[in-house]
Amino acid sequence: MPTFISPQPDDERFMRLALDACRAGVMQGQTPFGACIVRGGEVIESTHNHVWLTIDPTAHAEVHCIRHACQKLNTIDLTGATIYSTTEPCPMCFSAIHWSRIERIVYGANIADAQSFGFNELIVTNEQLIELGKLSMQLTPGFMRDEAIELFKLWQQRGGQTY
Amino acid sequence: MPTFISPQPDDERFMRLALDACRAGVMQGQTPFGACIVRGGEVIESTHNHVWLTIDPTAHAEVHCIRHACQKLNTIDLTGATIYSTTEPCPMCFSAIHWSRIERIVYGANIADAQSFGFNELIVTNEQLIELGKLSMQLTPGFMRDEAIELFKLWQQRGGQTY
Repeated sequence: MPTFISPQPDDERFMRLALDACRAGVMQGQTPFGACIVRGGEVIESTHNHVWLTIDPTAHAEVHCIRHACQKLNTIDLTGATIYSTTEPCPMCFSAIHWSRIERIVYGANIADAQSFGFNELIVTNEQLIELGKLSMQLTPGFMRDEAIELFKLWQQRGGQTY
Repeated sequence: MPTFISPQPDDERFMRLALDACRAGVMQGQTPFGACIVRGGEVIESTHNHVWLTIDPTAHAEVHCIRHACQKLNTIDLTGATIYSTTEPCPMCFSAIHWSRIERIVYGANIADAQSFGFNELIVTNEQLIELGKLSMQLTPGFMRDEAIELFKLWQQRGGQTY
């Protein structure tokens, strides 16, 4: 069973960085996903989805954020870190989080929300993956979900392209 | 339910490219994983795991192979392609395969084999993900598994570092 953690005092500040990155991505024609990685109260990296920008279907916000955080710190081990995702990490991103040993996930919208906006989601939730993999990951789901969904709407109004 | 496909005439040739890439990676101090992407009988890309080389926990053989294949072809859509993986794609790689619309996976060793060599695997099989996600992916599991396992042993003899 996942460990559900209620929102912590700084969560809003860090999720806002993920939402800001997401909005900046949307304004550049990217899909409406942002992420921010924090450890010990310090922001390591905050970024948006880069799939269209880099012609790379793996460049989701979380994967991109993990890559850059690891390169900054010169390690593949982010033990003790938390990731803030504007939308629940897809199974690719969730597994990247597992491999990098990030210990807590705070997310806004969920995978089914992303699907409802037309994305070809593989609908396997973080909760299911934690249970199947017998992981000790901590989850704070649905945090600032309305703001994440507003950014899906902004992306849609701007004629954003799904995949 | 996944569609299980028996080995096809060219599978050995393409899996051998993945095994060759894997071996080349091991000789450079990388972990023992290789992948090859083929479409219409043409090899698009063949490569090995780059996690240690690029300090990127997401640079598994399959993810690295998809990224480079997409950049070569200038598209995020690999519909019609097959991926040959020396080891069953982990859930990160499986989901990257899903996002890139690769339609068939041929693999050698399985995730539990990789775990037995010390990797911190998230044990959720391709079959489970196909069922949970109601996907139509085609699978050819356990193909040339012994040769893949030989490369784990070679990596181990060379003092390979796990993660």
